Amino acid sequence: MKLLNTINSPADLKRLQASQLPLLADELRDYIIQSVSRTGGHLSSNLGTVELAIALHYIFDTPDDRLIWDVGHQSYAHKILTGRKDRMNTLRQLNGLSGFPKRDESEFDSFGTAHSSTSISAALGMALAAKLKGEDTYSIAVIGDGAITGGMAFEAMNNVGVYDDINMLVILNDNDMSISPPVGALNSYFARLMSGKFYAAAKNVGKTVLPAPMRHIARKFEEHAKSMIAPATLFEEFGFNYIGPIDGHDLEALVPTLQNLKERKGPQFLHIVTKKGHGYKLAEADPILYHGLGKFCPEEGIKPVLAAKPTYADIFGNWLCDMAAVDKKLIGITPAMKEGSGMVQFAKDYPERFFDVGIAEQHAVTFSAGLACEGLKPVVAIYSTFLQRAYDQLIHDVALQNLDVTFALDRSGLVGADGATHAGNYDMAYLRCIPNMVVMAPSSENEARQMLTTAYRYNGPAAVRYPRGAGIGIEPEKELTALPLGKGDILRKGKNIAILAFGTMVNPALSAGEELDATVVNMRFVKPIDKELICEMAKTHPCLVTVEEGTIHGGAGSAVMETLAEEKLTHPVLLLGLPDKFIDHGDVGQLLAMHKLDKHGIMASIIERFGKIDDSGKE
Amino acid sequence: MKLLNTINSPADLKRLQASQLPLLADELRDYIIQSVSRTGGHLSSNLGTVELAIALHYIFDTPDDRLIWDVGHQSYAHKILTGRKDRMNTLRQLNGLSGFPKRDESEFDSFGTAHSSTSISAALGMALAAKLKGEDTYSIAVIGDGAITGGMAFEAMNNVGVYDDINMLVILNDNDMSISPPVGALNSYFARLMSGKFYAAAKNVGKTVLPAPMRHIARKFEEHAKSMIAPATLFEEFGFNYIGPIDGHDLEALVPTLQNLKERKGPQFLHIVTKKGHGYKLAEADPILYHGLGKFCPEEGIKPVLAAKPTYADIFGNWLCDMAAVDKKLIGITPAMKEGSGMVQFAKDYPERFFDVGIAEQHAVTFSAGLACEGLKPVVAIYSTFLQRAYDQLIHDVALQNLDVTFALDRSGLVGADGATHAGNYDMAYLRCIPNMVVMAPSSENEARQMLTTAYRYNGPAAVRYPRGAGIGIEPEKELTALPLGKGDILRKGKNIAILAFGTMVNPALSAGEELDATVVNMRFVKPIDKELICEMAKTHPCLVTVEEGTIHGGAGSAVMETLAEEKLTHPVLLLGLPDKFIDHGDVGQLLAMHKLDKHGIMASIIERFGKIDDSGKE
Repeated sequence: MKLLNTINSPADLKRLQASQLPLLADELRDYIIQSVSRTGGHLSSNLGTVELAIALHYIFDTPDDRLIWDVGHQSYAHKILTGRKDRMNTLRQLNGLSGFPKRDESEFDSFGTAHSSTSISAALGMALAAKLKGEDTYSIAVIGDGAITGGMAFEAMNNVGVYDDINMLVILNDNDMSISPPVGALNSYFARLMSGKFYAAAKNVGKTVLPAPMRHIARKFEEHAKSMIAPATLFEEFGFNYIGPIDGHDLEALVPTLQNLKERKGPQFLHIVTKKGHGYKLAEADPILYHGLGKFCPEEGIKPVLAAKPTYADIFGNWLCDMAAVDKKLIGITPAMKEGSGMVQFAKDYPERFFDVGIAEQHAVTFSAGLACEGLKPVVAIYSTFLQRAYDQLIHDVALQNLDVTFALDRSGLVGADGATHAGNYDMAYLRCIPNMVVMAPSSENEARQMLTTAYRYNGPAAVRYPRGAGIGIEPEKELTALPLGKGDILRKGKNIAILAFGTMVNPALSAGEELDATVVNMRFVKPIDKELICEMAKTHPCLVTVEEGTIHGGAGSAVMETLAEEKLTHPVLLLGLPDKFIDHGDVGQLLAMHKLDKHGIMASIIERFGKIDDSGKE
Repeated sequence: MKLLNTINSPADLKRLQASQLPLLADELRDYIIQSVSRTGGHLSSNLGTVELAIALHYIFDTPDDRLIWDVGHQSYAHKILTGRKDRMNTLRQLNGLSGFPKRDESEFDSFGTAHSSTSISAALGMALAAKLKGEDTYSIAVIGDGAITGGMAFEAMNNVGVYDDINMLVILNDNDMSISPPVGALNSYFARLMSGKFYAAAKNVGKTVLPAPMRHIARKFEEHAKSMIAPATLFEEFGFNYIGPIDGHDLEALVPTLQNLKERKGPQFLHIVTKKGHGYKLAEADPILYHGLGKFCPEEGIKPVLAAKPTYADIFGNWLCDMAAVDKKLIGITPAMKEGSGMVQFAKDYPERFFDVGIAEQHAVTFSAGLACEGLKPVVAIYSTFLQRAYDQLIHDVALQNLDVTFALDRSGLVGADGATHAGNYDMAYLRCIPNMVVMAPSSENEARQMLTTAYRYNGPAAVRYPRGAGIGIEPEKELTALPLGKGDILRKGKNIAILAFGTMVNPALSAGEELDATVVNMRFVKPIDKELICEMAKTHPCLVTVEEGTIHGGAGSAVMETLAEEKLTHPVLLLGLPDKFIDHGDVGQLLAMHKLDKHGIMASIIERFGKIDDSGKE
């Protein structure tokens, strides 16, 4: 009987001897590999935090002590230890476990995380709440070395440092790799902290501290070691008591160190060093490949498969290389998403024009504004959901100055397995209210390429929003062709009903339109919206339908209605799109069907709204 | 003849002897005091940067060398020295000089600034652009000790540190005060850097560096001093060469130090110490009072005047104190805007429940989310324009988890003298696309108080957006009364036309409605919008009008149209609101009239759209 089978809660875990924990770690690691191989999910990062999750639940009293896993894709061990082992086979599937901590899912998930760098802020809120309520609970933020360079982590650390009477611990999980390898000055700083004698000394501290009577001496030694080698770490300047670095896979170091820290008042900072993919050789060798993945055979590893169709990220990556070849002013910028955004080849071919600025969306956008001021042509590749992080920079630094920055918004609309935290449902609404912005949504790979060219050639801020994954399979033309600005495209002429479709909804709308003999328009531009075409459609069709993969509230359909109002046209309009709610993880096709945004759903909605329409055009 | 009269450009400045600069500084300081006393504007911060502006333009070759003034309200000396002296009398007025650097206004304004902490990102973009273009120009960011704690400044510094071959200088203008006194751990760190021998030693370096042959020795001495006293400052960990602190009012130290820095390659960091209000005793004594101000007599200073009407910030501040008195769970949070947001009294009465987190909007919002998780009831006071900074945190950390956080959005709509950078024109659009949000807009002071109570009692995220300055003069009732959720209020019943007005537009709409004998509704809620009332209005009126002080694109009027579509109602609607463009500074009343959002403008637009309407209700 395996140890892991006896663990259904942290209470079970606490019954083990400390000496049994390494065996549990091995079993847990194996369980994660087997489980992720069957469901897909994040692997490398979750293998890195097995010992940490065990040690934290062993020492602290969760859920009373609050445990926040920054970015969230390091929480599988935590999920398994907190009663969710048997549901790991449902991970990231419709109605199954979330791939991230989620307050609705478990009382042990103190705070929902997914976007980077939020944990210290939330933990400080909880720590101060405990203080105000006179409770003696602990708040713990576990944050990676990539995430800690996100600006809000610094804002939070700067604020934490003024409270010397809170029970709060920040654990820097330093694996020298965010999703892409990290790129900032701090990483070399962390490396300096880790190198040489200091690391060795601190590691010994962790071990010698174990027997209680030795603790005082160990602490003295540790302080001595620190003052000798690193007189004041950056984290101490922020007001933390800094301990580390220690080996985050060494439970004999981790457990006593956490025990020690638990007894201290005031902001504590523990620096641990872990290895992404630890314990699974293939992932250790290529942690990026094993970061987020589909199903695989654990013995054989990930097999390269010939992708049937290129993804939109591929389309973007190819476009970027092709445009860079003809325009030396092109600069490619990513906030730590080189692989996800399809920029690997560009980075290789144009290293001097490729800038990975780290997990720093705000900086990425204003940095691009600076480049644009000098006549260069920055292209910012950013996920729709992460542009939310740089919303003010987009308004205040780019759009207000009408600077020529191109935004390639990947993962627009529903994102599938990552769920609500990563949804790109809001971009059409939050972008089109900004003056000077151009906003486009492609219906195919070829159109994505054309729109990127259009955005690039447009002398001002322009965004192309495209979905996660593959398109409909239309191979892009080689040429770099721009589309006429603000002009839609009539795809079929029908009767009575005109369907005005945006982006990914063009294709299902066309299928629905064929069945209904409706006119179907690919609107292409969310902004500037094609007024002329809308007027034409309104004048020739008694009923209008808009369809978009985005929230209806303030979205592209709203833009159509505003145009009708402006043009003094009074028409029945059916607005189809995503509802005003957060949509959990699940297969995108399934989710679209559930929200009636597939062919049949669109047809059903139109018939429900407009019923049978006779040839005279009367409802 | 004054020296200042001979200076119409940096070229004129460069003709002066270094020994003449202190006299120029005195004249310039006096000019600023006289000028601001006549126009109003920012005083304290601009008196702090007189010597710095002189020294920078004296040593560097602006505009080829790029000079970026973070936050922007420290740039008056810069404006005066770069040919805008004679237009200072138009400061912050319609068609006059902007109170901030503005690219359209002068080639010397390399980057528009106003929101905090953007300068290092923009300067890095410019520095790397220069490198890529093979130009030898310099990029300089001047940033205050308050602004440098904003997260994006850290993101930028982390990124700067990896480039050792750029011409870039960051100047920390350390005056130990952002608008409110700063509150983070770093401030005590800066204080430590400033204290004792180190400061004195570094100050001497600046002086001894002057004669060229001495430079080498001085540099050695400086490095020695640094290594003795502060082995590695935080900024050095970020990859900068750190110099300072030196006295930022001492031109004899400033000029040679900048000359020295200009000759160095790689990221340079100069720490200067200045005094807000320097040289004007009244401002030195109370820099907060003299931060942003109206006209005053320089000899007598600001006279306390009995305000005719309380501002919305006052209404909020009173409400906060009253609600705190009856609910111990209330927590008040501000990102460095205690005074502006009206929280002075609350901070005094409830210090343990008042949190000024510094210029850190992202942290403020997620910190509040953490508090809300623990059952406390955070109220975040934040300007509409600054909530843009925390947009992702609002979506991802608050709304997605449906946490009970109240947002008091001051400065919604047009903001007057601060202009486009501070416009609160987008909040209705960017908030109402977020699921779970409640969004309200009060038409009077009393309603603001009721809405704050409504938001507070609503168990989820809710925002009240209210304008800058005073209301219409309706004294709030003492009671803490909540309004029914999502319900509007019919103010007058008329014929044919129903005007659905939001927030500040209710009052002019009512006046217009009286003239036109139209029905006028105070909608109160942007979200959830009052469907029932909209249907009722549509069924009883042939024509609908919406009016809002916010962008029409995706705004509250759009919400009305979406509701009509959802309810299968087809009605002519006139959408009135702010146009899709950035609106410069000027008097709010004037600007509203220009955009036809006063009584007469609303009337004119309605008549233009619907013409004369006969009693049968036909257009």
